[in-house]
Amino acid sequence: MAKGKLKIVLLGGLSEIGKNLACIEYGNDIIVIDCGLGFPDEDMLGIDLVIPDITYLEKNRDKIRGILLTHGHEDHIGALPYVLKSISPPVYGTRLTLGILENKLLEHTYDEKPLLNCVEAGDRIKLGCFEAEFIHVNHSIADACCIALHTPIGTIVHSGDFKLDITPVQGEMMDITRLGELGREGVLMLMCESTNAERPGFTPSEKKVGTSFEHLLREYQKNRIIIATFSSNVHRVQQIIDLSAKYGRKVAVTGRSMLNIVGAAVRLGYMTVPSGVLIDINDIKRYPPEQITLITTGSQGEPMSALYRMAFSDHDKVIIDNNDVVVISANPIPGNEKLIGKIINELYRKGITVVNDATAEVHVSGHACQEELKLMHALTKPKYFMPIHGEYRHLINHKQLAEYMGMPPQNIFVSSVGKVVEIDADGCRFNGTVPAGKVLVDGYGVGDVGNIVLRDRRHLAQDGLIAIVATVNTDEMEIISGPDVISRGFVYVRESEELMEEVRSLCAESLGDCLLSGVDDWMQMKTKVKNDLSKFLYSKTKRKPMILPIIMEV
Amino acid sequence: MAKGKLKIVLLGGLSEIGKNLACIEYGNDIIVIDCGLGFPDEDMLGIDLVIPDITYLEKNRDKIRGILLTHGHEDHIGALPYVLKSISPPVYGTRLTLGILENKLLEHTYDEKPLLNCVEAGDRIKLGCFEAEFIHVNHSIADACCIALHTPIGTIVHSGDFKLDITPVQGEMMDITRLGELGREGVLMLMCESTNAERPGFTPSEKKVGTSFEHLLREYQKNRIIIATFSSNVHRVQQIIDLSAKYGRKVAVTGRSMLNIVGAAVRLGYMTVPSGVLIDINDIKRYPPEQITLITTGSQGEPMSALYRMAFSDHDKVIIDNNDVVVISANPIPGNEKLIGKIINELYRKGITVVNDATAEVHVSGHACQEELKLMHALTKPKYFMPIHGEYRHLINHKQLAEYMGMPPQNIFVSSVGKVVEIDADGCRFNGTVPAGKVLVDGYGVGDVGNIVLRDRRHLAQDGLIAIVATVNTDEMEIISGPDVISRGFVYVRESEELMEEVRSLCAESLGDCLLSGVDDWMQMKTKVKNDLSKFLYSKTKRKPMILPIIMEV
Repeated sequence: MAKGKLKIVLLGGLSEIGKNLACIEYGNDIIVIDCGLGFPDEDMLGIDLVIPDITYLEKNRDKIRGILLTHGHEDHIGALPYVLKSISPPVYGTRLTLGILENKLLEHTYDEKPLLNCVEAGDRIKLGCFEAEFIHVNHSIADACCIALHTPIGTIVHSGDFKLDITPVQGEMMDITRLGELGREGVLMLMCESTNAERPGFTPSEKKVGTSFEHLLREYQKNRIIIATFSSNVHRVQQIIDLSAKYGRKVAVTGRSMLNIVGAAVRLGYMTVPSGVLIDINDIKRYPPEQITLITTGSQGEPMSALYRMAFSDHDKVIIDNNDVVVISANPIPGNEKLIGKIINELYRKGITVVNDATAEVHVSGHACQEELKLMHALTKPKYFMPIHGEYRHLINHKQLAEYMGMPPQNIFVSSVGKVVEIDADGCRFNGTVPAGKVLVDGYGVGDVGNIVLRDRRHLAQDGLIAIVATVNTDEMEIISGPDVISRGFVYVRESEELMEEVRSLCAESLGDCLLSGVDDWMQMKTKVKNDLSKFLYSKTKRKPMILPIIMEV
Repeated sequence: MAKGKLKIVLLGGLSEIGKNLACIEYGNDIIVIDCGLGFPDEDMLGIDLVIPDITYLEKNRDKIRGILLTHGHEDHIGALPYVLKSISPPVYGTRLTLGILENKLLEHTYDEKPLLNCVEAGDRIKLGCFEAEFIHVNHSIADACCIALHTPIGTIVHSGDFKLDITPVQGEMMDITRLGELGREGVLMLMCESTNAERPGFTPSEKKVGTSFEHLLREYQKNRIIIATFSSNVHRVQQIIDLSAKYGRKVAVTGRSMLNIVGAAVRLGYMTVPSGVLIDINDIKRYPPEQITLITTGSQGEPMSALYRMAFSDHDKVIIDNNDVVVISANPIPGNEKLIGKIINELYRKGITVVNDATAEVHVSGHACQEELKLMHALTKPKYFMPIHGEYRHLINHKQLAEYMGMPPQNIFVSSVGKVVEIDADGCRFNGTVPAGKVLVDGYGVGDVGNIVLRDRRHLAQDGLIAIVATVNTDEMEIISGPDVISRGFVYVRESEELMEEVRSLCAESLGDCLLSGVDDWMQMKTKVKNDLSKFLYSKTKRKPMILPIIMEV
């Protein structure tokens, strides 16, 4: 075994869903695996997305030999367009992954064109002292890989996201043979995803969904069928196209990301479309409805998605009616239940038949359940193990699973974002931390919204605001204009004139008191107005609007 | 059949969960059944709760013969404390229902003391031309009833919320015999709850939960057990107490509503506590942890609940540790999944074993599933049917169930809030509407927050606010102070000084232009500043903060 120390630190994906980013470091070389985004929590008002804090990578930019991508989902590549603005190492990914990434990069500008290198499963890439080996896995997107990183002190297996699909729709079953070989050769550390670590059994094959679709196509021969699913699930889309062709239907696609990804998948050869089956959305009116299948975005109830717009009669190309059948081929991601419910209710209102996973098996997960996780452990037989990609409860359940497989608890490292795990000839241990956290993206702003701004937004969201404005003549120390009271989001002013007048005179009194008693410190004056008004309003309304006292000097 | 017209109108509970309120009117008499609250949608920022618009009842106050309560849940009685301030008919409910209601009324003041009349299942009350008969049903709260309203033109059965529990923890099985008798005599209209209309089968008995608890008590003999459940589920609490006594444990209760309801239930004889079992929360330290069961609120992840405070080490009486087992005896209400997840993750972090419905059968629903709904239809054999209490999808599924039972579609009335259903000798039909809707409660304010205020709160929540303040000398038409720029919830000002300076000078220019070109209409001036600034900020930040131009005149 070499003498050096291997450091593993995750900048995201531990005790959280998304924002996956792992750094593996030895000597002068750093490898980054994935660079994903996260979605904002409910209390991050107005935030579009969350990316990892990459201060650590910026400080070590010269050491980074490459960013390796396991697959093309947002939570694995979505931060890259932002991160590539401050660091610019070469990026390695499979063809579909890079195809999706390129689409995203087009929306941004770069000083240097990012360096994208295409790999395929089986490839081994030399990067500094490391050799990265891409290994085929199944997942809810095509062309997904796990990565075996051969380091000077042993092999690290990073699972990416995976499931075992013994009967995949296209391509091969996950390469468990190669993983088994690696296990036989010796794996130093397994870093394995934990999304479904609480779920027993095996995740069903994607083919199961095809079988359900076929039942639906037979049952609803007289109806137009509209299927909402994840745009990146190329294999599911392929099944819909194949089955539609089989039952004499044309297929049209709607929704920006669906068009993007289907376009990329067809162009790159990940989808095979029988000729004449795929039609433009503008041409659907040329065919009777029962000869049409629509594939759409919106399976999570997203308010601007194509399905949402169809449901609320706001889609410019598709008018739905009670002869349509809508299939929601997805499970709600926690937090989206109500949004999806809103669409389902609206579809019911229009007399539309809705089929979802509660009524038919029209969705399967893309992640390994407990038996598949056990398989991964049994194949790779790692010395050390780090559960990754999951909330804390998932990591702990995965840890318990590893212990059940016979791994000694002291060889399992449940880490957190920024925490350094160090491995050398003497063993494996936690050793220190590096800067890590969440960077919030709001519009063009990256990192300019922090806790103070969010606290203010939450305050404003709760009870609105009252601005008190007065102009004071500083020579005479008297109010020469105002105080005026402006409120937003507090009460409906036209129906609360009396209250607003009380507010005005209370503020006039407060200010007057200050000026009379010779206070000339604006800060002190503002504090007094704020306190007096706050107390008054709470006693009257039990609300605490934000109070902005503004004093202009002349 | 009498000659008059019977009118049925719901002011809540149709195409929504909660806010249940039904009015049944004949000649000069109106009966109200239930008066519940609803919880705010996510976009109703800052709103505490939602109550029905009762304009219709206020206009017909002299006709109201009584408000009948089916049971003591918030969505059936929670609006009453507000409604009784503007109308004051006598209220009828069972003992536990009124016990819970009285607790709530104490937090409000009334000109006249509300008139509460205690009834029990089997009672028949004469109210104007009506006779109301209370009939025992099972539900997740004790002392629940459905109501048969005998009217001059026939009997209306209003199900309240119910399930069939053949082996109830206490008391009797739902009185299906009486419902069958009513069916034999002839039921004109069935109004039946639809909460679980999408779920096949029968809802399991509450006893099932007891069996699961007993397994847990045997499995975790060495641990303190903390069970979070709905405070109103008196029978579940009773089972926890009985089983704890059986296994030699003391029981302590925490959480305001849990203390209130357990207190009321014991006082009113709805719970029987073996002597010495219930102890004060302050005394738990006198016993070893394995002899303690704690019953707590917080099963929905509510941020101020006792369970939340325990999880985040903020409970003043209970310090949890890794020897504790927390049982979450509830299903997440849609929308609460993430809140509950947050608590579970925090409990895991403290090394605590968490048992929830995903891992053990520690919860059953209180609502009838499809087979029980069919039973209700089969027993009452109604001529007409109106599905109530549910989102639109639930109402439609319930309609389909009724059709499956053989009811002609034209006899089924899927109504909406405020829509009048009229029945007379000639038949049943929709006929007009009455005012109905949502009244929002925010602090002490009832109805003073409407769409405009909410729109402003949403705007402020998204991107915050920028106020532009200037004082203008109206004689000279020149700016004598400002413009000053104040922002909240937009960007972190200290790190955006350059941007704020650009904003200031842009506004100075806009105002200057106006004054130079002789504009003296403040409105026009404000609009110009707003438009110029809005365009600038969007191009710079892709955000749209609320802009408040304030011009003071001297």
